[in-house]
Amino acid sequence: MYRAPVEDITFTLKHVAGLKPALDAGTFGDLGEDLVDAILAEAGRFASEEVAPLYKIGDEQGAVLSGADVTTPPGWKELYRRWIDGGWNALSAPEEFGGQALPTMLGVAALEMWNSAAMAFGIGPTLTMGAVEALDKHASPALKAKYLEKLVSGEWMGTMNLTEPQAGSDLNALRARAEPAGDGTYRIFGQKIFITYGEHDFTDNIIHLVLARLPDAPAGTRGLSLFLVPKFLVGDDGALGARNDVFCFGLEHKLGIHASPTCTMIYGDGFEGTAPGAIGWLIGEENKGLACMFTMMNNARLAVGMQGVAVAETATQKALAYANDRRQGNAASYNGNGMALIVHHPDVQRNLLTMKALTQIARAISYSCAHAIDHARVSVGDEAIHWQERANLLTPLAKAFSTDVGVEVASLGLQVHGGMGYIEETGAAALYRDARIAPIYEGTNGIQAIDLVARKLPLGGGEHVHGYIAELKAVANQARTSNLQGFGRTADGLDQALDDLSQATRFLQRLLADGRSDAALAGATPYLRLISLAAGGTYLARGALADQSRIAVCRFFAENLLGEAGALKERVIGGADSLAAAGKTLISA
Amino acid sequence: MYRAPVEDITFTLKHVAGLKPALDAGTFGDLGEDLVDAILAEAGRFASEEVAPLYKIGDEQGAVLSGADVTTPPGWKELYRRWIDGGWNALSAPEEFGGQALPTMLGVAALEMWNSAAMAFGIGPTLTMGAVEALDKHASPALKAKYLEKLVSGEWMGTMNLTEPQAGSDLNALRARAEPAGDGTYRIFGQKIFITYGEHDFTDNIIHLVLARLPDAPAGTRGLSLFLVPKFLVGDDGALGARNDVFCFGLEHKLGIHASPTCTMIYGDGFEGTAPGAIGWLIGEENKGLACMFTMMNNARLAVGMQGVAVAETATQKALAYANDRRQGNAASYNGNGMALIVHHPDVQRNLLTMKALTQIARAISYSCAHAIDHARVSVGDEAIHWQERANLLTPLAKAFSTDVGVEVASLGLQVHGGMGYIEETGAAALYRDARIAPIYEGTNGIQAIDLVARKLPLGGGEHVHGYIAELKAVANQARTSNLQGFGRTADGLDQALDDLSQATRFLQRLLADGRSDAALAGATPYLRLISLAAGGTYLARGALADQSRIAVCRFFAENLLGEAGALKERVIGGADSLAAAGKTLISA
Repeated sequence: MYRAPVEDITFTLKHVAGLKPALDAGTFGDLGEDLVDAILAEAGRFASEEVAPLYKIGDEQGAVLSGADVTTPPGWKELYRRWIDGGWNALSAPEEFGGQALPTMLGVAALEMWNSAAMAFGIGPTLTMGAVEALDKHASPALKAKYLEKLVSGEWMGTMNLTEPQAGSDLNALRARAEPAGDGTYRIFGQKIFITYGEHDFTDNIIHLVLARLPDAPAGTRGLSLFLVPKFLVGDDGALGARNDVFCFGLEHKLGIHASPTCTMIYGDGFEGTAPGAIGWLIGEENKGLACMFTMMNNARLAVGMQGVAVAETATQKALAYANDRRQGNAASYNGNGMALIVHHPDVQRNLLTMKALTQIARAISYSCAHAIDHARVSVGDEAIHWQERANLLTPLAKAFSTDVGVEVASLGLQVHGGMGYIEETGAAALYRDARIAPIYEGTNGIQAIDLVARKLPLGGGEHVHGYIAELKAVANQARTSNLQGFGRTADGLDQALDDLSQATRFLQRLLADGRSDAALAGATPYLRLISLAAGGTYLARGALADQSRIAVCRFFAENLLGEAGALKERVIGGADSLAAAGKTLISA
Repeated sequence: MYRAPVEDITFTLKHVAGLKPALDAGTFGDLGEDLVDAILAEAGRFASEEVAPLYKIGDEQGAVLSGADVTTPPGWKELYRRWIDGGWNALSAPEEFGGQALPTMLGVAALEMWNSAAMAFGIGPTLTMGAVEALDKHASPALKAKYLEKLVSGEWMGTMNLTEPQAGSDLNALRARAEPAGDGTYRIFGQKIFITYGEHDFTDNIIHLVLARLPDAPAGTRGLSLFLVPKFLVGDDGALGARNDVFCFGLEHKLGIHASPTCTMIYGDGFEGTAPGAIGWLIGEENKGLACMFTMMNNARLAVGMQGVAVAETATQKALAYANDRRQGNAASYNGNGMALIVHHPDVQRNLLTMKALTQIARAISYSCAHAIDHARVSVGDEAIHWQERANLLTPLAKAFSTDVGVEVASLGLQVHGGMGYIEETGAAALYRDARIAPIYEGTNGIQAIDLVARKLPLGGGEHVHGYIAELKAVANQARTSNLQGFGRTADGLDQALDDLSQATRFLQRLLADGRSDAALAGATPYLRLISLAAGGTYLARGALADQSRIAVCRFFAENLLGEAGALKERVIGGADSLAAAGKTLISA
């Protein structure tokens, strides 16, 4: 059973991602370490004691559709109620609408814990928070007044309606349409698929944010507008009124996160006697819906990255506990009686240490991304631009690398359990199932890599990323000059990986400058992993410099896993031609 | 839906793994290419048209336990009947008992196809064939006469009973016991778990091969004896008699291969009024059971490797078909109207080419292992020793590398499908679930790596592996001197990887000679992947030299994936110390 690693999380926030210096500098006003510690401890308690025990029933029973109603698994509705009663939904939300306006760093740390305890639970509020942010930034005062307070408290939940059958990664192809009703409202028609928590019994209203096209809107994404469509209309007094014409027509039968209802939503079909056309309100300007939606999406990308971290953490805990309980065979390092605990076998240790190191790296990258988001919000001028660029740079790493790590670590965790890992009762297989969605949704990891190379490497005239690498090199140098023997060849490994990163970065920037985007994109995925490993290894070193008990895992990573960076650099620099040549042979028509 | 890649399989057998020269040299008597081609074509037809259509119902409904009876999914019993009527069970079995005695190379090629079509189907006959081989090699003439013919025809199936709750990887801890009855038979008592096809409705008798301890047997594996325990006793006339005291008490609820019943078997509990004690017959000598069982296990390890190849093949086909059907976005290489087929996107091509290359490599390694087994059987003297060593060397590669590839490729295949991949109806998720058992059973991949380093590197006084590497280097040299331009830097990549392999091999051999086995075992898993990538890349080159249409994928592999070899060598040579240092921190007590 998951036990929230509050100490590890707090340490990483403060001493790796930079929360401690920020608190000391008063960056977040009078927020102090005591309150941070107390919040994280209580979040850890809630996640371990309240959420985690309901994981299994959620996985086994899943969400169930009956008519157009969705019932969540036994106990989940009450869990959600206790969770919002604890104020957790409001943690990072704006104070104006009842939120606690705490830093995103705390928000993602708590989010990690909800997702570690039950990823199918953690994903729901993630979407509400995205809706809150989009409304707060783009909606009219009237819409904010009517909806934000209840979304912040969690009394209502929000959803994000983008995908249609023909339009997943490519939003240009969206077809859902919106017709002006003449009274300032719109009527929405169309089908949306893969809508997470599109329908459920947690709350008595659900606020859908929907991308649709107005009549005569331009083609492509520049013709998309964003609408707010409540499940039940809301009176000026806040009371619920008529049922709106948006209904759930199907639940997907998914590999994992069974308790999270993944809905097909039909807008405007006049179902159950409702007036045809779902009534919606425009958010922001006409044809500027994508920009509004991106507010949600960036937020959601980091949040999905936390799911990768979260599942990796749970899988590591589970495997470590099993390896300290299961006995098989002899091991040179074991002197006790009978069979050795399998944690003594070098091959098992290799799996466990790989899991630990990758989890810590993904966490450090994700928290560092949150740190940048927080600083962008509280800064002004060039500093705000700097931190926003940093957040933009790190978001695809946080999303893609962390979720790849989630899958990799969950798979290793299953392996550590041997045959028991393949049996569903053990619970390791469920993590392997849950983890697999995160590299796909909120922009596939391939798209994150393209975003990183095509849109993030050019930031700051192409210099932002080099500034980041320079910061990392300074940390590597600290490790070298620390004279701490336990580091072994860590500094050599980091220097090499960061040099590889510099070279690969400049190579891709040259390709982009030369207009050879296909060659650059061919190397995007290896590049994303390269920068993540190099940055992550450096974060491990930063943690180890602050706490010497962390040196051993840092060194293991540097001497066992970081060597991949060299191969990745070679792929980035030398892989595109053969990919293009062989790629042609895949096209059947 | 799976379409057996008969051409690809036949090509790999003949021109990569060495079947063509063997046929030309008359190694397998009068077996000629025409018959080989006809058999593979018909196996392909059966797999594609008869087995594959029953995959989905097998996955969805699974095997069901009622009382002590197991019912396989609708249509599966009839499928099995058609399959044995086609003579497929007897393909590689000894002629003396009705088999066709065809080379193992053909056997594993067919096995790949059954497993591609439905892994839960392919695994059953695999165990029967292991039982046939163990009985043929070790059983008394009387036992052979009574059981072998029906096991060869498939009228009865065989099982392999090793694992007990406290004894999985470590057979020293087995407790099941056997008491001599005084009449030449024994009474078997104990519990066995994870018994594949331990109970089912395919056949009216099931022949269990069971490891148990005689009274006063030595501790450990040197006190294990192998027994034959039929579900129903068999009269001297071959007629079925009384029910034996071996019953299925439970089916595991597994992540995948749902149609394959994974049974808990209880021996000797006097269930259903049977006389307590399951009646068994000794196979081979007392306390030599493990040696007999190893006959089954080596066979089974290659067979499980084929499951990795098989799932990888199916996942690749599925993803390739989807990528040639799904349209999203624009691509530089696409000039048509509307959205581009996603197969045009470089990132999708990278995934697909990785899948293709890894699948081809795993297949080439596995078929080469079968080639060695075949040659060991038909050779004498030093040549037989040489080929047996080669088979022994390649078996852990075939098992572990191929099954790791199965998981990796199934995961990439799911990713290519985007959100649809996570929906069970699509079928990509089921492959990801099925594939995950293969790195675990028949000796975890960690144990395969240990076997490779500790027992296979010392073969032939440590020189066998270097002879193998020298053969690979000769092929790399052929690629270099071929002057075929499409190879790009393939020869450079192969030379580098093979040099890395040589160095890592000698390093591990020195560690073993110095008695530093823990340090050697720390590098076992990276070493197994290193030798597999280096050998696999060379096999791709051999195929490309024989058929230039294969050059592009070979070059993609050499320039994009083979670079990992350098990092793996560094891990083997430089990773053990940090692993040992950090490994200590994992031990909780």
